[in-house]
Formats: sequence, structure tokens, C-alpha cells
Amino acid sequence: MANPTPSVQLLLTGNEIMSGDTVDSNSALIARRLGELGIPVLRKVTVGDDRALLVRELAAMAQEAELVIVNGGLGPTVDDLTAEVLAAVAGVPLAEHPGAITHLEQWCARRNLQLNAANRKQAMLPAGCQLVDNPVGSAVGFELAVGACRIICTPGVPGELKKMLDLIVADLAQRWGTGSEHSVLRLQTFGLGESSAQQIIADACPDWPADVELGFRAGAPQMEIKLSVTSRAALPARERCRAQLEALFGDHIIGEGDIQLAEAVLDLLRAQGRTLTTAESCTGGLIASMLTRIAGSSDAFHAGFVTYDNAIKAAVLGVSEDTLREHGAVSEAVVRQMAAGALARADADYAIAVSGIAGPGGGSPDKPVGTVWLAWGDADNIEALQLCWPVERTLFQTMLAAAGLDMIRRRLLGLNSQPRYFAQRRVG
Amino acid sequence: MANPTPSVQLLLTGNEIMSGDTVDSNSALIARRLGELGIPVLRKVTVGDDRALLVRELAAMAQEAELVIVNGGLGPTVDDLTAEVLAAVAGVPLAEHPGAITHLEQWCARRNLQLNAANRKQAMLPAGCQLVDNPVGSAVGFELAVGACRIICTPGVPGELKKMLDLIVADLAQRWGTGSEHSVLRLQTFGLGESSAQQIIADACPDWPADVELGFRAGAPQMEIKLSVTSRAALPARERCRAQLEALFGDHIIGEGDIQLAEAVLDLLRAQGRTLTTAESCTGGLIASMLTRIAGSSDAFHAGFVTYDNAIKAAVLGVSEDTLREHGAVSEAVVRQMAAGALARADADYAIAVSGIAGPGGGSPDKPVGTVWLAWGDADNIEALQLCWPVERTLFQTMLAAAGLDMIRRRLLGLNSQPRYFAQRRVG
Repeated sequence: MANPTPSVQLLLTGNEIMSGDTVDSNSALIARRLGELGIPVLRKVTVGDDRALLVRELAAMAQEAELVIVNGGLGPTVDDLTAEVLAAVAGVPLAEHPGAITHLEQWCARRNLQLNAANRKQAMLPAGCQLVDNPVGSAVGFELAVGACRIICTPGVPGELKKMLDLIVADLAQRWGTGSEHSVLRLQTFGLGESSAQQIIADACPDWPADVELGFRAGAPQMEIKLSVTSRAALPARERCRAQLEALFGDHIIGEGDIQLAEAVLDLLRAQGRTLTTAESCTGGLIASMLTRIAGSSDAFHAGFVTYDNAIKAAVLGVSEDTLREHGAVSEAVVRQMAAGALARADADYAIAVSGIAGPGGGSPDKPVGTVWLAWGDADNIEALQLCWPVERTLFQTMLAAAGLDMIRRRLLGLNSQPRYFAQRRVG
Repeated sequence: MANPTPSVQLLLTGNEIMSGDTVDSNSALIARRLGELGIPVLRKVTVGDDRALLVRELAAMAQEAELVIVNGGLGPTVDDLTAEVLAAVAGVPLAEHPGAITHLEQWCARRNLQLNAANRKQAMLPAGCQLVDNPVGSAVGFELAVGACRIICTPGVPGELKKMLDLIVADLAQRWGTGSEHSVLRLQTFGLGESSAQQIIADACPDWPADVELGFRAGAPQMEIKLSVTSRAALPARERCRAQLEALFGDHIIGEGDIQLAEAVLDLLRAQGRTLTTAESCTGGLIASMLTRIAGSSDAFHAGFVTYDNAIKAAVLGVSEDTLREHGAVSEAVVRQMAAGALARADADYAIAVSGIAGPGGGSPDKPVGTVWLAWGDADNIEALQLCWPVERTLFQTMLAAAGLDMIRRRLLGLNSQPRYFAQRRVG
């Protein structure tokens, strides 16, 4: 049986967070990782690197919460105050921790550095604390109980926090969690809005089980659907919910976990031994960039063309100058020729081509900003589609790049459908 | 004379922020905008959409702070609690606000919608409050004094908050600010590390004036240097500091405000009536994407080539197959031919070419992950440079794309220097 979940608060420190120079993503990461264990965060407080403020907040939290995670302030400089603040709240002295010294010595040795006084400060920890290993950085984490509250201090560097959270979460899972890493199932989707997904599910599943929490995390371009359960007993119900979601909009589901559209497309291409090329006008290289961000993309993506200008569409991709004159660059005929030209020049199996008006300038009454033609397919069958998606320029580029990738994903899966997103944006 | 700055706290609400599903960037925006007025935020607290928790936090803040900004919870649904929480803390009833009804009616009319009960809830505000206009959304902001504390409630939708902050900041500037929008000067740089910049300034400017605060905001790829003053009297000192920074590393300064490297390059190209093309291997279209994200980029950027594969480097850019065989794709000879080929194919004035090993795979003892050749220039003079920048794949792509843009920026400015970043990363 799982224990009742503890009351958790977060204390975040750092002048750069307080001033807004840095957007704090660490607290969201901590909350998500704890959330996967079914442990909610009740409250979080952020203050700058100010000893009196930090002591006040931490002392108040220690009275109220069963678990406090402190983030930031573990570094070697004078404005890194976390260790001395925790010592003050716990009423213990600071002392050089032998395990921390060993960690620092090893860290320095791997870098051919001498352990200096600034580094040594990072080993001055509240007496009686336990270390939490930092597999990547010099600052160890540490924890100490203050009354009935367990306080864990973690580094502010996101990469270091992430690694340390793996250790902390594993430990919490044993003490408090459901004991199952699978308590949250995350499905990545493209082409569904949050409110319409919610409505569809509400209409189709009036008997949605109470022990499977449904959540959404809308992003651009993807939306995540979360199914959370807080006990193992609810896992079968969660699987039934997943099956219902797949029946409702399985073609919109890219995959599980953190998978990105470009990754799913590359996986399908690799599995089928095929290659993809791109001919981009208004997305300006973004599709190529989304693909090549993924390690190993060179297996299936060899070439991309950014043909921003009409003369280049003709010279590089062989789009006919007559067609350009007659139909304009944002037209079905041109985008089809772009796709065909890219297939030929790159000797690729599949192509995506996009030509549109990203704005803010360049629109006309006939073809307003947001007008775009998309073509995709192979040498035997190129399909094309016109949309109107009048949003801010970079969002337009992001959504259209994803739309192109999604049409190839559907093609590779043999699906004959289009994202629901398109319904209100299709022209003609 | 400016008044002493008020003590400010932020209260943020929303289950999606608490769970970490959404990273809160609103509080950073508020802090930055207030910071530009010289008004620091002392403390921020985040809780979920929980009436009792919100009342407790807001009541405590009202006792301590002179200004509290509440963000979130203004929407039409039952979990939007901000109005009733403020009413409870102020000890006043909720009442339908005629001005808010008018705002909602106009908002609905522009969208051909009927005002419904859910919308009407957004007009139920604490009695006696003043409205803060929302130029873009249905939820009005509102403010009310509780004792000596002024409480302003703002919407959680970032675009709505941003517009409303313009109004709030203008009002605060009159009441409390330095009265000068120019109290913070932000300089964008590329190629300088935070700690080395700090050291160079400390060494060269031992007499740095106390009333000009120096700040850094390290990002990838750019770093911002901030010069903040809290009174008009310090403006001449700030200008002297700026001149000192320009003397120390003026070639690293891209421009003021939020300017991005790609924007600076496009501005220079446009001013000189020149065009740029790109031949990208390991950056995979990112340089093209950075350029085309900028509105109006089509003036100076007509074509880009993503030549991820050797056969494509030969077929599309005319890189010699002998050269590829002899030197490998990551070599000076190849990257120079890529630049020359792109110039010819795109009929452009300048080119950037990049070929390297982004990793995590593909490295060898001879050419480890992070090895990269960069070429840039015009038909008369192509320069090339080898670097080794062994960082995580997407960071590698980001930094190398920026490095290429920066070398063209320097070339267009007639500078003969390289970013300091390169010093430890140059090979050969």
C-alpha cells in the first residue's frame, strides 16, 4: 500500500529569477516529476539571494510541510546562501563534509583543476546532513530533517537538477509514491485543440472513470494528453481510457512520452527504408531544422531546399517560370512543382513543400496573410492542400512546419485523414 | 524627484503552473517590466486554484507589501477565483461592474457572440474596485486598495498580460518610477562568456560608478549586458560606462534592446543592398530558419541549402567528389566549396557554409564530436575556420548557426576580429 502523499512546498532562490532575467523552469520540472508519483506541490515561494528572507521562508515551510525542496544557491560564490540558511533554520553549525570534499576532489581531478577555496565552500554544509549525489556538477545536494519536515537542497543549474531529481524521485517513490513509474501516461498529439479534445471526450465517454485523471498540456505545435492514476489498481482503467482515446482520435496521436513529430516521422522513414526531402518557402528551413535537431536524422534526411525567392524556385527546383507568373508563388501548381523538383534534385522518396504568406507583410485581398499551400508525397502521388492560418509569423511557421511533417506521418502510416485543426482552416 | 520604490510582491495562481504543466513566464515578464522602472520584486508565491490558500497568501501579502500584483484566475470558469479572493481579503462583496459589462458586450459584439452566463461571471468584481483595461481579451483587470496595499489583478494569458502591463507600468512610472524609460540599457552580444566579460570589465574599469548597476543575462546564443540606473542624474555615468564597454568589446555588441543576430545581419545586408545564402550540413537549416523568422528577411535572403549528405553536397552545390573522398565532409576544402557552390547556385553576394559533427554519433579520434568547419564570404574572398565545440547536439547547432551569422556580421562591418568564444575552441 502506498502511504498518504506528503505535503510538499518548494523554495526557489536566485536574484536572476527574481528579476525575471531567467524564467524559472526548474520548479515546473520538480512539480512534473513529483506529479508523476502522484505527489502534488502545494505552494512555491521565490525570493532573491537574501539571507533574512530565505531564513524566514524556510522556517515557515518547515513548520507546515512534510517535504520542502529548495532549489538554487548551492554554488561557490558569496551569494549562494542555501547551506547557511538551512543550518540557521535547523539550528546546527556549518561543517566541512568529508563526502562533499571527496566529490569535489574527484570533480576537479577529472578536469585537471586544483581544489580552490571557492570550491571548498561548497563542502561547508549543515552538520548532520546527508548528501544527494550530483552526477554532473561540483555542487552536491544535501538533505536534513527539521522537526517533522524533510528538507532537500538542489542545484539551480537545470542539467544538474534533472540528474539529481532522478535520484530524489526514485527515493520518494519508495517512501511515498504509488511505486509505479507508469502512474502518468503522456500521449503526444498534433492537430487537436484542448477545448475540442475535451468536448469530444466528454461527449463520447460519459462514464469516464473517476480514478483516471485526464489532463492536457497545450503547446505549439503539439498537445500532450495526460492520463494520471494514483494507484496500481487504476492501471486497467487507464488502459481502457487509452483505448477510448485511440478510438476517438488515434490518428492524431504521435506517440508516448516526449516524442516529437519530427522524431516520429524519422522513425517511420527509417523503418520503411525511405528518405525525405523538403522544399520550403514560408517556413524558411524550419522543417529541415526540426528534422536535423534529432540525432541520427541523416539516415533518412539528406537534403533540404529553402527557396524563398521565385527565381530560386525556378533555378534550384525547376519550378516553371510560366507557372510562377500565371499562378503566383503561393499556389497549388507551384507547390506541387516544388515538391516534384525537390524529389528529383535530392533523389529522395518523399517530399514536403510549403509556400505561403507568413506576414506581417505580403498579403493581398486575394491571398491574405496566413494563406499557404502545402504539398507532400512521393513521385507517384503528390497531394496538395490550401490552408489559411492567420497567426503571428513565428507561430505560423511552427504550425505549418508541423502540419507538413504530420501529413507525411499520416501518409507513411497509410492514413487517409487530416488533422482536425485543418477543418476550420482549409480553403476550397 | 522620484518617490522611494514600493515593496512589491507577486501572487501567481493556476493549477497548470503548480503542476508544472505550464512553465510560468508571466512572473518573469512582470519582474522585468517593473525592473525597468527600478522597482524590484521582493517575493513571489505560487499556489493552485484553491480559495483558502489564495485568501491566506493574499491577506499576508496585503499586510506586508505596498503593491501586490496577482496573476491568473480571471477567466470565466469555476476555478477562476481571483475576484472572490480579493473581495474576501478586502472584506467587500462581489458586485456586477458596469464598466466590465460594457467591456464584455463590446468584446462579444466584435466576435458576433452573445454574452452568456459564463462571460457575465467575469464582470462580478470586488465592490469599489477600479478597472484596468484589457485591450485584447474578455477578462478585465482590476485593482483595489486593502489597507496601505494596492492590489492589481491581471490575466494569466501571456498576450493579455503583456498589453495590460503596458498600462500598469505607465501608471507606476508616474507614481513611483524614475520617470525615465531609459533607466535600463540592454546590449546584445555574441561570443562573450559572462564570467570573462565580468573579469575584463573588473580589470579595465576599477572606477566603475556605484550608481550604474552592471548585469548579465546569459542565453544561447546571445548574452545580454544590462546597465541600470535608478535616477536621471546617473544617465551621463551610464553613457560613459557604455562607451567603456564599446571600447572593451564593441565588436561583440550586436545592438540594443532585443535585437537578434539574424536581424542585425539582415539589417546590414539591406543597408548595403546585398544578399546572403546558406549551405548547411550539421546546422541542418537552422541558420536559414533564424533568418526567415525575421519579417522582411526575403529582401536579403533568397535561398538556403541543407546538404546533409555527401552526394547532395556534390549534386546540389557542386562540391567535388574527389575532394569529399580525399578530405572528408568535415574539412576546409569541402566547406569552402560548399560556400562557393551556394554563392553560384543562389546568385547571392555572401554565403555561410557549415560542416561538422553535431553528435552524439559520427565522431572519430581524428575528428571528434564537436569538430566543425565554418566558411563565409563573397565570391572574391571566402574565409574558413575550424572549431571544436563539443556540447549537446541542439546547443552545438544553435551556437554554430550563430557563429556563422556573426562572422558575416563582422565581415559586413569590415571588422577583422573573431568572437572571444573562439579563442579556446579554435583548432589549428
